[in-house]
Amino acid sequence: MRRKIGKQSIQLKHAPRITAAGTVVGHMENEGALTGHFDTVIPDDMWGQKTFEQCERLMFEQSVKLAMHKCGKRDGGVDVLLGGDLLNQIISAGFAARTLQLPFLGLYGACSTIVESLLIGSALVDGGFVDAAACAASSHFSTAERQYRMPLELGTQSTPTSQRTVTGAGCMLVCSQGDATNKNDWPESVDNVHVTGGTIGRVVDLGITDANNMGAAMAPAAADTLLAHLEDTGCSVDDYDAIITGDLGTFGSDMFAMLCEQHGIQVADKHMDCGKTIYLPSQDVVCGASGCGCAAVVLGAYILRRIEAGDIKKAFVMATGALMSPVSGMQGESIPGIAHGVVLERRN
Amino acid sequence: MRRKIGKQSIQLKHAPRITAAGTVVGHMENEGALTGHFDTVIPDDMWGQKTFEQCERLMFEQSVKLAMHKCGKRDGGVDVLLGGDLLNQIISAGFAARTLQLPFLGLYGACSTIVESLLIGSALVDGGFVDAAACAASSHFSTAERQYRMPLELGTQSTPTSQRTVTGAGCMLVCSQGDATNKNDWPESVDNVHVTGGTIGRVVDLGITDANNMGAAMAPAAADTLLAHLEDTGCSVDDYDAIITGDLGTFGSDMFAMLCEQHGIQVADKHMDCGKTIYLPSQDVVCGASGCGCAAVVLGAYILRRIEAGDIKKAFVMATGALMSPVSGMQGESIPGIAHGVVLERRN
Repeated sequence: MRRKIGKQSIQLKHAPRITAAGTVVGHMENEGALTGHFDTVIPDDMWGQKTFEQCERLMFEQSVKLAMHKCGKRDGGVDVLLGGDLLNQIISAGFAARTLQLPFLGLYGACSTIVESLLIGSALVDGGFVDAAACAASSHFSTAERQYRMPLELGTQSTPTSQRTVTGAGCMLVCSQGDATNKNDWPESVDNVHVTGGTIGRVVDLGITDANNMGAAMAPAAADTLLAHLEDTGCSVDDYDAIITGDLGTFGSDMFAMLCEQHGIQVADKHMDCGKTIYLPSQDVVCGASGCGCAAVVLGAYILRRIEAGDIKKAFVMATGALMSPVSGMQGESIPGIAHGVVLERRN
Repeated sequence: MRRKIGKQSIQLKHAPRITAAGTVVGHMENEGALTGHFDTVIPDDMWGQKTFEQCERLMFEQSVKLAMHKCGKRDGGVDVLLGGDLLNQIISAGFAARTLQLPFLGLYGACSTIVESLLIGSALVDGGFVDAAACAASSHFSTAERQYRMPLELGTQSTPTSQRTVTGAGCMLVCSQGDATNKNDWPESVDNVHVTGGTIGRVVDLGITDANNMGAAMAPAAADTLLAHLEDTGCSVDDYDAIITGDLGTFGSDMFAMLCEQHGIQVADKHMDCGKTIYLPSQDVVCGASGCGCAAVVLGAYILRRIEAGDIKKAFVMATGALMSPVSGMQGESIPGIAHGVVLERRN
């Protein structure tokens, strides 16, 4: 059965269903625009652990457990865990997989990881390779700052284009139509959200070298993936109720709209960016949010519900990642971006 | 079409074909037991680049180009590049993907990456999502030492259980039966090697904390995946001509055989470890080779040819990864291991 469309896109003929999401966030994330939407809010940056890294791992683990719990999945009820995070050697995901004891495929797509995970997970379900895939990603402000930028203790000031890494972990369960525990008994269930297609991103680099301007580094990749998706599928932006990006932030979102316009595509009316959504302007986060966890928790806690409620019927969701490392930056490299996309649709 | 078997395994009903492999190694790797088998041997650790990291990236990129060239694939002839490496944020793979301009799915499974890549790549081909997938991984002695252990300049002595990270990059192309450029015109072509199944590994941790004893940290994962594979498929070790592991080394291989024996499985006669194969004892590498590149180049340059020649008709190939980071080690964590497996078969 051929599922490839065009150059970079796939169609999911059996339209696997997202049956549940689990989200865990920090207190600041819950004090923003989406307050009350998340499953678990941790009281501080440590959550009773000895290190920030252990806290992030626990958040990752709990987001998977929450998603499984919501649709009655016990141990062994999920066939594969796909995911990653921003830490070196994706230790949040790897160590969480140790505790969860699920078959594990580690992914790294920087902040695009949650959609990379949904894309591969949904393909594996659609192809009949697994019945249920847990797709997850996490990030943590304090682990990311000290690994990518400066130790927090220095109190370094934010630059005008910086974005704040979300402390959050999100997991979504993608299940086949025939999956036994497909029915949810959770009060706020997701019953009608399907993954119907996707587009695998290419690496795009317009030469941005400022690690505090990730939005600009990632916006060209988002535009590239959207254009590829529309070309591959023969759809136009009008066929979608929403074009959603992961964490371009305010500056990156403007750049994304501008780049699309250069190709004759008007996205402004339909574009929503998770990085612009989660915090309130009063929270003083400069250009908005970023991090693997940003798209993961906004999708899991908010977008899925809007699709379920029917005010978004079809969305193209891209998460964007900056594929640099501190070492590549120090060696004079610019910041390559990537964006993967999935089509989420409400179907009865 | 159901392709799931048992708990962790999949069958590939259309048996995608490996049509070519490209390998690039360091001079020391070419002076070992497999001398003359590799496509490109680089003269020193830099290959004309300014840094070790840039050298590794170039090796990654060239291995993909070589594999594509061998079966007449030009730009756009491959639908997706899947792969990763050991460096933080998998920059070798990410930056190579920037140059190659292929849709890219970044993976991280430490030294299990090449098989993780073959597993997902083959599933995507088998399910009709792509026609041709490039599956690649790399490692470099000098980039790995300074990132994971000590700066080379210190001249730190090897411990009795240490293994040497292979300087090497390997790429294998997995293609659907109907893929247009399926026919090879390269002299030493791979015509009859098929990927017919696989097993997704779980994270296993028996509490090893010595970063210089990776073989011991990974052996339990290899045993776990082999047991799962045999249980899922109903096969026994007798059904395979070879059980191949990535880089357990001498100590890890003994431990693997012992762990299998505890479950009543005798692997010793059929077991081959890429990490024990590539170097000669005279090269003074203590317990053998390791690194993402080890399994990638031994598979690509040697195992595929042995299968093609028919002296191995069916092999279960596992690559094993240690999912720790220097940070997790410093925070007192043990080293979790993972092993992914694929079934490679000769078919006419």
